[in-house]
Amino acid sequence: MNAIRGRFIVLEGADGCGKSTQAGRLVAWFRTRGEDPIHVRDPGSTGLSEAVRRVLLDPATGRLCVEAETLLYMAARAQLVAEVIEPARSAGKVVVCERWTLSTEVYQGLAGGFGAGKVRRLARLAARSVEPDLTIVLDVPVGAGLARIARERDRMEQKGDDFHARVVRGYRRLARRREKCVLLAAGSEDEVAARIAAEVHPHAR
Amino acid sequence: MNAIRGRFIVLEGADGCGKSTQAGRLVAWFRTRGEDPIHVRDPGSTGLSEAVRRVLLDPATGRLCVEAETLLYMAARAQLVAEVIEPARSAGKVVVCERWTLSTEVYQGLAGGFGAGKVRRLARLAARSVEPDLTIVLDVPVGAGLARIARERDRMEQKGDDFHARVVRGYRRLARRREKCVLLAAGSEDEVAARIAAEVHPHAR
Repeated sequence: MNAIRGRFIVLEGADGCGKSTQAGRLVAWFRTRGEDPIHVRDPGSTGLSEAVRRVLLDPATGRLCVEAETLLYMAARAQLVAEVIEPARSAGKVVVCERWTLSTEVYQGLAGGFGAGKVRRLARLAARSVEPDLTIVLDVPVGAGLARIARERDRMEQKGDDFHARVVRGYRRLARRREKCVLLAAGSEDEVAARIAAEVHPHAR
Repeated sequence: MNAIRGRFIVLEGADGCGKSTQAGRLVAWFRTRGEDPIHVRDPGSTGLSEAVRRVLLDPATGRLCVEAETLLYMAARAQLVAEVIEPARSAGKVVVCERWTLSTEVYQGLAGGFGAGKVRRLARLAARSVEPDLTIVLDVPVGAGLARIARERDRMEQKGDDFHARVVRGYRRLARRREKCVLLAAGSEDEVAARIAAEVHPHAR
């Protein structure tokens, strides 16, 4: 079987679902298979995108209108595509990314009331939003995710339990009808890692 | 004649055309007529928008893809509308603003190659971009604007003479076919101030 070049794998889910941990394990899993994957987070992983991330997550930023929030996430994403993801895919590398446009659809579009369709139209117009080859959404019981965050909550996490519940339900709703997207049930870290590996396996060499 | 409530006056033009100086004089002019105008700059004039402005103008930010640049300007603008301009207009105040969506059309759309039409479609989708009642574009001879900037150039100004020339020509092209928009010839500070006052006069009480 020929290698599928430049696979782009996204881990998604509500705050506290374990994305970062599982992304780290997935990167390690790819390494055991001889890959040299790039691990990025959205927003983040470029100078601009990390600067935008700090503004978005800093509680001192205060209340933002949903339009500004949406546009900031998209700006960070556009730069991440241009600087990291497009070059990595062109070089045939696996990219493992925490969050992508689905996050904006869920957080700003559904939970924030901007409209998921409007987020998708904006993303298409802004152009620099490449489509993942596989999106894995880590489900959490409603209300369970935020409780798992031990550190101080960031600006988005401070939106509270009701917003977080809308996020969890939003992921379930969008993940079920999206192509190249799977919703994984919650479980222990090892259980979820095994499920992710099973999903990703056809995308490995 | 009844007062036209909540007039929104925008000063536009290439770097070094004298927008800030003239905006200050226009605000003073409104005050002599018993108004209490709000003076803002775009990007800027809210906590978020000033943070975005710093990122956009800081030479340390380096090269940004045009999509990210466009989206950042729009995010700053959306927050400025929500936090300052809509409340001011609702209260019947005059708003004098340095730069608006026309800047993004010219800088990113025309000079940056993103496309002015795409910028307008994005602005409409992002929604929080109110239409000015009057836009005054201060023309400068090609090449003259940048030379007038005595301080160190910011990231946008560092794009160089060729980019700046495309900006000056872009303003001329768009201003001529835009409604509620006038292109003012260059002149001394007092001459330009008098021309601006003549244009704004019908919008004063």
